[in-house]
Amino acid sequence: MTSAAPRTTGPDHLWSVEEHLEDILATVRPLEPLELNLLDAQGCVLVEDVTVPVSLPPFDNSSMDGYAVRVADVAGASEEFPAVLEVVGDVAAGAAEPLRVGPGQAARIMTGAPLPPGAETVVPVEWTDGGLGQGPVGGMRAHSAAPEAAFGHVRVYRPAEARAHVRERGSDVRAGERALTAGTVLGPPQIALLAAIGRGTVRVRPRPRVVVLSTGSELVQPDEELGPGRIYDSNSFALTAAARDAGAIAYRVGAVADDAETLRSTVEDQLVRADLLVTSGGVSVGAYDVVKEALSHVGDEEAAGSGVEFRRLAMQPGKPQGFGTIGPDHVPLLALPGNPVSAYVSFELFVRPAIRTLMGLTDVHRPRTRARLAAERAIGSPKGRRQFLRGRYADGEVTPVGGAGSHLVAALARADALIVVPEDTESVEPGTEVEVVLLG
Amino acid sequence: MTSAAPRTTGPDHLWSVEEHLEDILATVRPLEPLELNLLDAQGCVLVEDVTVPVSLPPFDNSSMDGYAVRVADVAGASEEFPAVLEVVGDVAAGAAEPLRVGPGQAARIMTGAPLPPGAETVVPVEWTDGGLGQGPVGGMRAHSAAPEAAFGHVRVYRPAEARAHVRERGSDVRAGERALTAGTVLGPPQIALLAAIGRGTVRVRPRPRVVVLSTGSELVQPDEELGPGRIYDSNSFALTAAARDAGAIAYRVGAVADDAETLRSTVEDQLVRADLLVTSGGVSVGAYDVVKEALSHVGDEEAAGSGVEFRRLAMQPGKPQGFGTIGPDHVPLLALPGNPVSAYVSFELFVRPAIRTLMGLTDVHRPRTRARLAAERAIGSPKGRRQFLRGRYADGEVTPVGGAGSHLVAALARADALIVVPEDTESVEPGTEVEVVLLG
Repeated sequence: MTSAAPRTTGPDHLWSVEEHLEDILATVRPLEPLELNLLDAQGCVLVEDVTVPVSLPPFDNSSMDGYAVRVADVAGASEEFPAVLEVVGDVAAGAAEPLRVGPGQAARIMTGAPLPPGAETVVPVEWTDGGLGQGPVGGMRAHSAAPEAAFGHVRVYRPAEARAHVRERGSDVRAGERALTAGTVLGPPQIALLAAIGRGTVRVRPRPRVVVLSTGSELVQPDEELGPGRIYDSNSFALTAAARDAGAIAYRVGAVADDAETLRSTVEDQLVRADLLVTSGGVSVGAYDVVKEALSHVGDEEAAGSGVEFRRLAMQPGKPQGFGTIGPDHVPLLALPGNPVSAYVSFELFVRPAIRTLMGLTDVHRPRTRARLAAERAIGSPKGRRQFLRGRYADGEVTPVGGAGSHLVAALARADALIVVPEDTESVEPGTEVEVVLLG
Repeated sequence: MTSAAPRTTGPDHLWSVEEHLEDILATVRPLEPLELNLLDAQGCVLVEDVTVPVSLPPFDNSSMDGYAVRVADVAGASEEFPAVLEVVGDVAAGAAEPLRVGPGQAARIMTGAPLPPGAETVVPVEWTDGGLGQGPVGGMRAHSAAPEAAFGHVRVYRPAEARAHVRERGSDVRAGERALTAGTVLGPPQIALLAAIGRGTVRVRPRPRVVVLSTGSELVQPDEELGPGRIYDSNSFALTAAARDAGAIAYRVGAVADDAETLRSTVEDQLVRADLLVTSGGVSVGAYDVVKEALSHVGDEEAAGSGVEFRRLAMQPGKPQGFGTIGPDHVPLLALPGNPVSAYVSFELFVRPAIRTLMGLTDVHRPRTRARLAAERAIGSPKGRRQFLRGRYADGEVTPVGGAGSHLVAALARADALIVVPEDTESVEPGTEVEVVLLG
């Protein structure tokens, strides 16, 4: 029944947003790294410095389709007075045994193929007659259609400097250099580099597995019939989608009825696949607040870090919140309030940073900016509570959508920002500069 | 052997970046929509206007844990002179048959529970003695621990106006209103709304299935031994990761050797699971450019839209490109050059917009901005070709990383932007304002 940031709190303590967040981030630890296949590591954080084992490119190679020649043999060549060279064969990309190019000779060479011994430079095929004897050509004929073109003679119409159109060994990266440093997030270009230096697997922190469940005997699954007093379960869908969006592998368990024993056994069942548990509903001061009732008792309360603490936060929406760790492995659990807008705002403020901390990211928060409030009238806010209003942000202005009611899920679907109204502010006039959380 | 935007082009035509892109976007069509489960539709584009079938909330309900009472019964109530009411039972969330509240009576009510007939307002439990007779309480005792608290008497210490702490039926959305319009991208808040109004499935355009294969007899898979003249296959990894990042379901086939028949049969095999095919390598003017050789012949060349056209673009990197459709279903195919940086830049400019067009998105391009060039010396650029240099962007400034060489994959992994140097510019001085494509 403890949390990692001990403080002198009683049940009457009103937690600030920062205190609750600090407690979560002080408790949640980045997941243990493991070796993953390259494509399974996409979006993950590298935990090792990766050194280049072999220089890139690994050998001098041609950057053009053309002819590998000696500089002296093409010196002074022109369309009027071409150099005529004996073609000794093809050097294709992937060729194992390169030809040797002697004086007066040329090897037909393909982009990426190793510069053969004896050759000093490459002339692009467009500077030659391609072996056809009829002036400059646009390209080579396919080897399969004209195998004889690998031999015979080629006319070269322009000179070339030494090592023209040659990519030097190690000109990209050299063996022993650091390719990527620990802490790098692996996107497509980093995956390109790792593959290019021969790394098929890489040591990263995995994506966290997040189990999402909603609670409430009033909840009915979408597409089923809505009886009297019932509403549809939206939180289990929204929080699963949001957890994925934050980078997690999310499992939606669905809705659990308001029965402490059922909830407790469901949570215990799910622990095996959870790096983080997220619940919604049942955290307030009612007589049927099943999460509060059930989860204060899961796990060994004597063990450090076990047990979930339920709190009141100085915020709106999202006043009631639970946080702690459960089970023998001390899996962190965030218990969010049940109103869909409260649950979503709580996710953005607390669960998303927890997921990103598990991933080992350092940048765990949504970006914030300041914007001018575009509204027809002043917006009110309860004293002593930080309010997060839904808004639309564009070009330095933010416009509130919907009202302050925490059940306004229709307005939430039109919002792309949260407007932050501080605890000590009771009214914000139109035109005032406000802080805005950008929801992406 | 045609493409959708006919123009008077011969093999010598040098295509502009815009012409090639226009041709692709005029050919690629959004995928046919289908009905998907809500969580499978995350990130997809809605193709129907969704109307609210049932008002939200579907009934008047309590926004607090407290007591449902008549206004007159609590008028003038104070701590000194509390109103004492008979508690007739609990109204929990999900209760099927609400109690009736008569004069002098109260029903204990939970957040989200329907306001019972006869009740006019809700007093929060914190304004009462919770039935315990010992002054204001902080919350209710759990029903499972104290079932008797659903009955007895409650002291109410404060009056309440009519419909205080009551969320009215339809105050969120009303039946018949439009919840979401066609074209909306489904993120977590939109999924919340759809679930809340009872929609378990929704009609969207699916994620495109993108098959990625690289070509080249020089390619070795990472973690295998690198023979002479060989390099590691990085494009199949990078392009698969990039396709996913763009929103696709991507399948990495891996590397195919430079043999036209093998490539042709591999592509034909893959058509069954492809909404888009992406190849790398083998598109230039060499004698072993297998993609060019093989794919000009796939499909019925007589049929409209079949066949792949190979082009030279006025850009660097990425000069040789192929585009067309193949197979009986005219699956679009983009054939990218094989150099890793050329392939990646081509992906960003051409494949990503194609994927996002298949998804039905209207915003298909990476964002662009203008930035001041932060460099020690002028950067050169070939006349007549639009150059895309890799750079790092921050605070209105962009700094080139690595050089212009298209093989500099190590520098690419440090870049987060492309610096665009127009066709008619041969040199850009430090401090000049340049166009920048933001890759993040």
